Amino acid sequence: MGQIREITIQSRDRCELIKLDAEVARLVKESGVGEGVCYVFVPHTSAGVMINEGADPTVAQDIGAKLGELVPREGPYRHNDAEKNADSHIKATLAGSSVILLVSNGAPVLGTWQSIFFCEFDGPRRRRVLVRISEA
Amino acid sequence: MGQIREITIQSRDRCELIKLDAEVARLVKESGVGEGVCYVFVPHTSAGVMINEGADPTVAQDIGAKLGELVPREGPYRHNDAEKNADSHIKATLAGSSVILLVSNGAPVLGTWQSIFFCEFDGPRRRRVLVRISEA
Amino acid sequence: MGQIREITIQSRDRCELIKLDAEVARLVKESGVGEGVCYVFVPHTSAGVMINEGADPTVAQDIGAKLGELVPREGPYRHNDAEKNADSHIKATLAGSSVILLVSNGAPVLGTWQSIFFCEFDGPRRRRVLVRISEA
Repeated sequence: MGQIREITIQSRDRCELIKLDAEVARLVKESGVGEGVCYVFVPHTSAGVMINEGADPTVAQDIGAKLGELVPREGPYRHNDAEKNADSHIKATLAGSSVILLVSNGAPVLGTWQSIFFCEFDGPRRRRVLVRISEA
Repeated sequence: MGQIREITIQSRDRCELIKLDAEVARLVKESGVGEGVCYVFVPHTSAGVMINEGADPTVAQDIGAKLGELVPREGPYRHNDAEKNADSHIKATLAGSSVILLVSNGAPVLGTWQSIFFCEFDGPRRRRVLVRISEA
Repeated sequence: MGQIREITIQSRDRCELIKLDAEVARLVKESGVGEGVCYVFVPHTSAGVMINEGADPTVAQDIGAKLGELVPREGPYRHNDAEKNADSHIKATLAGSSVILLVSNGAPVLGTWQSIFFCEFDGPRRRRVLVRISEA
């Protein structure tokens, strides 16, 4: 029940918001927890996780575009290594490294328009998302 | 104890930060949990929740104004539907969809100046906030 | 086990990102929790907490610099008191007031490059961080 479960992701673009709804729902169901809390944690520093609208894909596109405008790839960054990904780290902090979901009747509780998005800010890469489900 | 509780809100402005302290404290008390964690989750995609200063109302005003400056309502957004609320979704991600609070002695633990704010970014609307309190 | 534990911090600059990894790991170990969740909560309104890269110190410098550029200290803020810290409150909301960590084998689970940072936005000050560890 309380073990750490893992989702693996292969991102395809540098900046890409990838829905995790189906995988998270599957892990919650497999956990056997009826009423509880689901913790979704990203163990990376140039990626994050958020909950936002999943019905219209232009919302995720607008979020990615605005983050790219606020934190452009080129800039007076000190973290000027081979990867050139200072902007990715900053965006990861703005999105956040985890989300929590309430679990009820064996499923994550999401609003009508909500989806869970893995936020790739420095892809394409193979990534991991850690999930734990606890009883309330 | 572990059931999901709900707060309903009627926002009055398009962008409005509304204190939830009293309702959250009441729900924690009603739960009977002495020591634990309180999860506050917003099931909407154009609203969020944050913890910040509640003593001086100008702090919330400044936060709302700065978010409006960073993410203006007008812009080259693709999510250009009848509601014109791409900015609201982006602000929701910057604020976040949930906060956690520690519970001790049957009450939420908040710093001297802290309040919990529902962040309306696309009001006026009727909104819901979901709350679960678990024992530590 | 489930008691609230505390880390005290003395910041030295106005804007300073301070690693909490060692203290959090020590508190998790002391709690005796093998498998669970660790909640890290900042009870202040001009400081926050985040998880990001801790290996190269320039990442934290870039994050602080970008936040300072997006939310400059001088501006048309209403919260214009003696402290002049409207920007600090806004940055606290962008960083967030809490992080959660999964705990496994008696230790916080962090990715290879991840560190937990207390985000001082209005130092130097004496600050507190509250930590609770619960079994999964």
